[in-house]
Amino acid sequence: MPNFIYEDFLLSNEFSRRLYHDHAVDMPIIDYHNHLIPEHLANNHQFKDLTEAWLAGDHYKWRAMRANGIDEKYITGSSSSSREKFIKWAETVPYTLGNPLFHWTHLELGRYFEIYELLNPTSAPGILNQANEMLQQEEFRARNLVVNKNVEVVCTTDDPSDPLIFHEQLREGQHGLKVFPTFRPDKMCTVKSLDYPVYIRKLGELCDQEINTFQDLLDVACQRIEDFNAIGCRLSDHGLTHLPDVNHNDEESARTFDKVMSGSSVSLQDAEVFMITVLHHLCQWYADKGWTQQFHLGAIRNNNSRLLNTQGTDVGADSMGDFQQIQGLSRFLDGLDAKEKLARTIIYNNNPVNNASFATMVANFNEHPTPGKMQFGASWWFLDQYHGIIAQLQDLSNYGLLSRFVGMLTDSRSFLSFPRHEYFRRVLCNELGKEMEAGRLPEDIKMIGSMVEDICYNNAKNYFNFE
Amino acid sequence: MPNFIYEDFLLSNEFSRRLYHDHAVDMPIIDYHNHLIPEHLANNHQFKDLTEAWLAGDHYKWRAMRANGIDEKYITGSSSSSREKFIKWAETVPYTLGNPLFHWTHLELGRYFEIYELLNPTSAPGILNQANEMLQQEEFRARNLVVNKNVEVVCTTDDPSDPLIFHEQLREGQHGLKVFPTFRPDKMCTVKSLDYPVYIRKLGELCDQEINTFQDLLDVACQRIEDFNAIGCRLSDHGLTHLPDVNHNDEESARTFDKVMSGSSVSLQDAEVFMITVLHHLCQWYADKGWTQQFHLGAIRNNNSRLLNTQGTDVGADSMGDFQQIQGLSRFLDGLDAKEKLARTIIYNNNPVNNASFATMVANFNEHPTPGKMQFGASWWFLDQYHGIIAQLQDLSNYGLLSRFVGMLTDSRSFLSFPRHEYFRRVLCNELGKEMEAGRLPEDIKMIGSMVEDICYNNAKNYFNFE
Amino acid sequence: MPNFIYEDFLLSNEFSRRLYHDHAVDMPIIDYHNHLIPEHLANNHQFKDLTEAWLAGDHYKWRAMRANGIDEKYITGSSSSSREKFIKWAETVPYTLGNPLFHWTHLELGRYFEIYELLNPTSAPGILNQANEMLQQEEFRARNLVVNKNVEVVCTTDDPSDPLIFHEQLREGQHGLKVFPTFRPDKMCTVKSLDYPVYIRKLGELCDQEINTFQDLLDVACQRIEDFNAIGCRLSDHGLTHLPDVNHNDEESARTFDKVMSGSSVSLQDAEVFMITVLHHLCQWYADKGWTQQFHLGAIRNNNSRLLNTQGTDVGADSMGDFQQIQGLSRFLDGLDAKEKLARTIIYNNNPVNNASFATMVANFNEHPTPGKMQFGASWWFLDQYHGIIAQLQDLSNYGLLSRFVGMLTDSRSFLSFPRHEYFRRVLCNELGKEMEAGRLPEDIKMIGSMVEDICYNNAKNYFNFE
Repeated sequence: MPNFIYEDFLLSNEFSRRLYHDHAVDMPIIDYHNHLIPEHLANNHQFKDLTEAWLAGDHYKWRAMRANGIDEKYITGSSSSSREKFIKWAETVPYTLGNPLFHWTHLELGRYFEIYELLNPTSAPGILNQANEMLQQEEFRARNLVVNKNVEVVCTTDDPSDPLIFHEQLREGQHGLKVFPTFRPDKMCTVKSLDYPVYIRKLGELCDQEINTFQDLLDVACQRIEDFNAIGCRLSDHGLTHLPDVNHNDEESARTFDKVMSGSSVSLQDAEVFMITVLHHLCQWYADKGWTQQFHLGAIRNNNSRLLNTQGTDVGADSMGDFQQIQGLSRFLDGLDAKEKLARTIIYNNNPVNNASFATMVANFNEHPTPGKMQFGASWWFLDQYHGIIAQLQDLSNYGLLSRFVGMLTDSRSFLSFPRHEYFRRVLCNELGKEMEAGRLPEDIKMIGSMVEDICYNNAKNYFNFE
Repeated sequence: MPNFIYEDFLLSNEFSRRLYHDHAVDMPIIDYHNHLIPEHLANNHQFKDLTEAWLAGDHYKWRAMRANGIDEKYITGSSSSSREKFIKWAETVPYTLGNPLFHWTHLELGRYFEIYELLNPTSAPGILNQANEMLQQEEFRARNLVVNKNVEVVCTTDDPSDPLIFHEQLREGQHGLKVFPTFRPDKMCTVKSLDYPVYIRKLGELCDQEINTFQDLLDVACQRIEDFNAIGCRLSDHGLTHLPDVNHNDEESARTFDKVMSGSSVSLQDAEVFMITVLHHLCQWYADKGWTQQFHLGAIRNNNSRLLNTQGTDVGADSMGDFQQIQGLSRFLDGLDAKEKLARTIIYNNNPVNNASFATMVANFNEHPTPGKMQFGASWWFLDQYHGIIAQLQDLSNYGLLSRFVGMLTDSRSFLSFPRHEYFRRVLCNELGKEMEAGRLPEDIKMIGSMVEDICYNNAKNYFNFE
Repeated sequence: MPNFIYEDFLLSNEFSRRLYHDHAVDMPIIDYHNHLIPEHLANNHQFKDLTEAWLAGDHYKWRAMRANGIDEKYITGSSSSSREKFIKWAETVPYTLGNPLFHWTHLELGRYFEIYELLNPTSAPGILNQANEMLQQEEFRARNLVVNKNVEVVCTTDDPSDPLIFHEQLREGQHGLKVFPTFRPDKMCTVKSLDYPVYIRKLGELCDQEINTFQDLLDVACQRIEDFNAIGCRLSDHGLTHLPDVNHNDEESARTFDKVMSGSSVSLQDAEVFMITVLHHLCQWYADKGWTQQFHLGAIRNNNSRLLNTQGTDVGADSMGDFQQIQGLSRFLDGLDAKEKLARTIIYNNNPVNNASFATMVANFNEHPTPGKMQFGASWWFLDQYHGIIAQLQDLSNYGLLSRFVGMLTDSRSFLSFPRHEYFRRVLCNELGKEMEAGRLPEDIKMIGSMVEDICYNNAKNYFNFE
């Protein structure tokens, strides 16, 4: 291994190195939240080439290419070849110096393909040939890429209207990997979406039940939670700008539902009450099932109408909002807690300004018997980088119990993204090692090492109760 | 002294060590804001055991225990013994690694009891026995604990309805400690509180005057300011989510007062105008008296209804809000300044996102002849930890004059919390020492040391004018 | 050169030093945004003394003096002498330890006057005499001070009503410096300003056209853009608290204009729609001209009414607001982009809490063919200091492409402020050098050095297209 992205990458002192090499590197991975395609996992998909494995669907890279002035035809266009797109990405990589993509790129080339050259226009052809060749091997098929990284559990992200056939297929397979769906009912909650009625009809069809009323919707939701649970799901997930500071209201929500289904428009206020009301029901069922609920808060999506209209959603035009978050979050969590129906909860944040207030707000609802019941989740999206990870760890330490943290997840669409666990673990061990060196933590490798092992694996293992 | 929490704890280079040992450690302490119980100070209270001295009322520790999954009966419950509670706290301590509680805990064990073992379930029984024994000694009585830490002045926090009898008692005592009350009229300003009329009647009884009108209220408030002043009070304090961006209005406030006293409810807007109006009057009297006014802004309290209903307020369910702060603060300060009635002011912040804007906003109102008239106050509550202290010092430096800072306070209910001054001083000296080493400050120990002495003691001495 | 502000000031390792000395120090300066007085540039103004060159108009220093308790008569007063004012500033300087002013002050004394003593009451008389003497020399005249710092381009800030006579004069001069105006039409957009009708009449007179309707206003604005463009202007600039989250509307704006011109008052909402509408027109013309548009967002000005009424605007009573910024910014940029009329854009931020969300929001609109089309601008105002510069660089790296950054500007009214480019370059090189030492960037001085050269000069050269 050469100088950059080397064996002791990010490990700046002896404590850090011992923590990482003796306590982190061998711990299995529970990747409890990602966006891997279940079909690719089930079929152990073979990638055509590195462009497919790396660039197809990776809007982080697209965004960087646009920032570098690359023509859209080499980014999402259909008129350019797979090779041309790769070359344009290779042109961009040297300009990502300092951006997390520069680290991810070389970490992935190194850890999967043992390529430790820097990617640039000169090295690109050779790297592409070597990687393309390797991708034809059995061990480079999609599921194998995951298994070979010591991954024990993978949780994908699935809409309630998904029939889960690939998850059924995966459940029966003998492949050494546990794969579970995650219940992500965003579409069910969002009446302002233009195709809401279409979605609701599709959902009804799946369940063989016409959804004519708000109560029908709740019934179907409850049924799908049962179905997901039966196949091993133990997590839900919600992506929202923020939790509006309004009360749940069944009657108003029933009226809103009727309006929307009959094609009328509804006010923003009505849509907010509807969302909070559906969430209030769903979350109680999560608590009944012993699930963990996740909330991804703070993104503002599809800011660029031209890209939305031509390329669709999730193409690299999303960013951070600056919403007022805290009073609505307090009201929502308290409403569930007051009924003793607050499930284990993880709140993820997309704008660093909310770190401290989120970390302290969730901690108001911790309680016996689950240690770390309320989690301030790992650095998400734009914050999943060196400084963002440190900020989350630091805020979690200062405002809560780092020792009870359930740790890292990839949140990724890419089968080549598992070195992010390695990256996180290196940062974690380095931060703790620096604290030890500075005398702010005791010089007790066993004690701190045990905390590292917990954060890497044991805490997640105990917290989620996967079967 | 052993390795952790050792003599040079937090002092990373020779400059830092010289600044701390030669310029900080021997400076007396002016603890100008805390929540010590005046009765305990007056009676020189003897603690039954370490559980009483350390765990009773300390919602920081309760919160950590809940986060660690400890049963509430060992936290605030009445069915468990003092010893059981201590053991459960000792179980939790190793899980607070990285949290300020881990530092506070061992700093307090070390500095008061000379116990330098780490607290955990194994060491707990021995530590408990030793500390309990020592607490029976004369020098471990409440007031002596304070005096022995080189504390010159202590300012408690007192409601206008408090008759101040313990402060009168303290004033006459010969004990080498100056103790003053602080005027904290939050209840007087908060008409939305359910027991507002009850409170107002109680206040009137204390002053032998029926409070029937808004003007009566102002008269009584003014009278109590005189009373507090007569006993040595030189500070007021207000705890608010934020200063609403509304104008004061006597007529509206008078109507609001009548409504509330007759049992009617009032709108949020009316309550905000009322609060700003009362504040506008109070603050002018503070200016007339030459007091310093403090505002603690940004907390959102009692988020957990179940805990509120069973345990009451201040039990560990408070956290940071994300209120818009700046326009209201600007309007309020300017309204007083325009009348040349802006007292010396300290603004404390509970959400780090407001540091920079608070620090720059207050500085708009600095003026001759008081150096540092407008203070961006020391790190408060959740921010009173290693990184929070550094952030406050850094923001104060960048946006104002660190050299004019009136320094640290404990803000604590605990008689064992005075090592927080030591902690603050170590962080201050270390940050300055690091700047010197990096060449960002001149290598002039005398010059920087003199600034350290000012921040530790001289500035507060000159600023507050205690008699 | 002595110890403080020395040759390797801020450069903490060998990588940093090589980057700075081999790749940064000799790059020319393009100071694409400042507030230098065109008349002083045109006439190559000779300063009477250091007080005029340094203290007249420098509200940063005034603000520090007020924080230090100095009497206003020595700050902005007319009854004190130039020498007295300087002495009072010298008294204040030692109290600015840790504030950027301490660095700026000694950097400017050193780099312009080769004075490396610390300024304080003792050294003040000698320093004043020496500097005053030097200021009488030819090379210390205003324009020469700029030219001698290796400055290639300077862009001042000019109202549309400015006849640009000094810029015409400068254009014809043989002085080795390119000076261009920047189009800053804030007054044109702000109908709530009391003297709006007066301003509009003045603007009409300049263009020999009566401005009676909203359309007239747009016509004159368009004409002034042509005029500015003809003299070499390639930039516009707008100073706003925030971009309100409203839609542009010509009809409403025409009504608002009529109201205001006839002396009626308008609602805040009307004023916001008016501003967004005028901006929407102006920005399309900027795009047509191939200009770069700048937005300075987040300041809240004139907080202190007493100072405003006695001293006017820009006297040191401005600070950071805490406005919600993101949804309005998204709507505004998208409205232009949807019409393919989004010019190259730089967003500057005055409150560090908006760094991350601004950096990510602008990046939603990057596109071929301009690399780095959408810029998260250099640290502005209160953020233009050691930690603020680092934060901007770090956020830009994490959320965008640092390598495409157009770099530093002085934003200053002072002819002695060009060492801020040196300061920025030192911080940049030091941060990159530290990353290299830590192994987070490759140890490739040529590669990183080339990025440094781009950020110091090449990027700005390519981006702005000055002629």
